[in-house]
Amino acid sequence: MVDVDGNVILDMFAQFSSTPVGYNNPTLLQAIEENQSMFVNRPALGNLPPKDWAERLKNSLLSVSPRGLNQVVTMACGSCSNENAFKAMFMAYRRRERGGNNYSLEEMESCLKNEAPGCSDLSILSFYGANHGRTMGSLAATHTKWAHKLDFPTVDWPFADFPKLKYPLEEYVDENRKEEERSLGQVCDLIEKYNKKGRHVVGVAVEPIQAEGGDNYASPEFFRALQRICKQNGCYLLVDEVQTGMGSTGSMWQHETWGLDTPPDAVSFSKKMMTGGFYYSDELRPSEGYRVFNTWMGDPGRVVLLEALIKVVKQEELLRNVTRSGQTLLQGVMSLQNEYPHLLSNARGSGAFLAIDGSSGSFRDTLAVRLRNAGLHTGVCGPRTLRFRPMLIYREKHAFIALDIMRDTVREM
Amino acid sequence: MVDVDGNVILDMFAQFSSTPVGYNNPTLLQAIEENQSMFVNRPALGNLPPKDWAERLKNSLLSVSPRGLNQVVTMACGSCSNENAFKAMFMAYRRRERGGNNYSLEEMESCLKNEAPGCSDLSILSFYGANHGRTMGSLAATHTKWAHKLDFPTVDWPFADFPKLKYPLEEYVDENRKEEERSLGQVCDLIEKYNKKGRHVVGVAVEPIQAEGGDNYASPEFFRALQRICKQNGCYLLVDEVQTGMGSTGSMWQHETWGLDTPPDAVSFSKKMMTGGFYYSDELRPSEGYRVFNTWMGDPGRVVLLEALIKVVKQEELLRNVTRSGQTLLQGVMSLQNEYPHLLSNARGSGAFLAIDGSSGSFRDTLAVRLRNAGLHTGVCGPRTLRFRPMLIYREKHAFIALDIMRDTVREM
Ligand code: FES
Repeated sequence: MVDVDGNVILDMFAQFSSTPVGYNNPTLLQAIEENQSMFVNRPALGNLPPKDWAERLKNSLLSVSPRGLNQVVTMACGSCSNENAFKAMFMAYRRRERGGNNYSLEEMESCLKNEAPGCSDLSILSFYGANHGRTMGSLAATHTKWAHKLDFPTVDWPFADFPKLKYPLEEYVDENRKEEERSLGQVCDLIEKYNKKGRHVVGVAVEPIQAEGGDNYASPEFFRALQRICKQNGCYLLVDEVQTGMGSTGSMWQHETWGLDTPPDAVSFSKKMMTGGFYYSDELRPSEGYRVFNTWMGDPGRVVLLEALIKVVKQEELLRNVTRSGQTLLQGVMSLQNEYPHLLSNARGSGAFLAIDGSSGSFRDTLAVRLRNAGLHTGVCGPRTLRFRPMLIYREKHAFIALDIMRDTVREM
Repeated sequence: MVDVDGNVILDMFAQFSSTPVGYNNPTLLQAIEENQSMFVNRPALGNLPPKDWAERLKNSLLSVSPRGLNQVVTMACGSCSNENAFKAMFMAYRRRERGGNNYSLEEMESCLKNEAPGCSDLSILSFYGANHGRTMGSLAATHTKWAHKLDFPTVDWPFADFPKLKYPLEEYVDENRKEEERSLGQVCDLIEKYNKKGRHVVGVAVEPIQAEGGDNYASPEFFRALQRICKQNGCYLLVDEVQTGMGSTGSMWQHETWGLDTPPDAVSFSKKMMTGGFYYSDELRPSEGYRVFNTWMGDPGRVVLLEALIKVVKQEELLRNVTRSGQTLLQGVMSLQNEYPHLLSNARGSGAFLAIDGSSGSFRDTLAVRLRNAGLHTGVCGPRTLRFRPMLIYREKHAFIALDIMRDTVREM
């Protein structure tokens, strides 16, 4: 990146983790050149999709579907992607309860007045430290910063603690397992409590790695157990891959590394996927039109860009690249942490999705500013975490540049 | 429009009223050609806007600001535009109550748990038949169709009847005035009732013409009185111009025709404005960063298109054009209604924003399908209304084509 004063900066935050393959990528530019009508005309995709829309979706979103999920719908951002995934879960849950769509007139009329029985008291269970978006529904499942929520009305939905693991994970296996069991116990208790008080939990929303919340990890066992709990309680599982999707962890979808017995019920995406939306199971497919709907239903230009992006990722083998360059960066950050254990700790990561904690929030803040002034743009999250979100195209040499700047900066502090 | 079978159709619905100047407009295409970096790179506009962003906003959104509103923020769709306008109102209301931003620790911590005192019980008053969006907050102020709301959780927010006027308006002045007074009386009662039960009404959201609800009109006097009621009760007034904004009524903003003493507190937009967002008063400006915020904060490419669009609208004097061609269409539809009073009634409109009622919902539905099959695409709304949303570029000749198809089709029915 070059700032307004001409300073050249290595961007390891990538527009809140949303830029996949750098600025002005030639393949993406060519896709715009060749598909101008998809940028200048914005159809209401739910009603009047372009002639080749099915083909486009096959070449883009459906060519990278998570295993076992063959349904997809496009949206325009992470918030509406999650809100509409919630809606799909609410509808499927009630359809199951009713044994179909036999709505009463009372239900159809009362919902227009925001009243029961048409409006339900159903709830979505989330985790403390989660960030699923900024609109009222996605925000009700978000518990990150007061600035996101203060003074805004909301609904009574349950949330459990997300496990607070100790790093490096391989050194604290037993302690971490106990911590994860504590969190899962809360999930069970909350489902029971909310079901009892008539606010039935229809779904659990979870990020594979809590990003805004501080780059918090949990083990594959945790997520497998979470899915079992969902199944035992008739809840759906929504995996929010808005931040982890499209390869920065080294996999296209982080949840595919968990070894789940069956796919999750829904997977939401946005950011580096260029377009918002969510994949979902047949069971979550709305049985009527206009239920998961809005004017634009996404943006065809963004799907064109995704199609080009997938080509780049495959041709340049960027998932392998990200795994390698991420490892170099993580190793470097770890040895820096060993040199300065009073300042840095908990280096952790998956692929090039990396983070390290500062000794305090104010140290972390100062570090981020000094790094930027020295030419390295990073992000902050949680109370004292510095995060790296390198783009998929970064090579080992970019890791070395970042590490040199890091070392010089930390030495001066 | 040309469909997949090669049928040529005159598009008078314009992608749910969101296409301003037709397909493949050359000036818009040129803007894409000249600004490819704004399409291929999508910055987090809230943090890293492009160098010339302020200039871009001045040349686009701020060059068509509603009178008296100099603040603007970009969003990506109508739903998040309204949700964030709600947030601005909640914050300003609480800031006024607190006399500043002196939050307690308890407030900052409880909001993360979806609890009081951090999460407020404040409410937004809307109207029956309103459509402000599909995400949970905007949907709580929406009361149009059960398909939008059934089975989804919501909040207890008040809504009043929107006046049900008789057309033509000039023939039913007294009756309509009484009907509007009835609606305004409900607004006063509801504000009092909700304030008493601790769910204080901080704002009133209203569309200048209820579109999805059935193209329902109210008089300038109604809106002036509504603003007075808001001021008396310390509520803000949000005018939702997502459907009416950008000229299709013959004015850039429909609320500017009301003769308000002072501007409304906020005006939301999307659709034909190409980008979402809202204008707002100084009082509604958040006093901290990251409060009205999300990853992308809109899309710079959409603002580039708006800049080009405004050029086209001014150069081709499209507001004048729309007024003239809209009048021709309305007169034609009215004389058709006089010929077939048992089938058609209540022809009404403002500029080229026009509607007519069918004798029943099923007649209207059949009419819309037959019109489309005969080469005229229109929209439906409310229980039995057919709506026309011609683009700004349509001339009188397009009105004549539409009227010929209408006449032939109705004759056969
Ligand atoms: S809520 Fe997602 S784009 Fe508006």
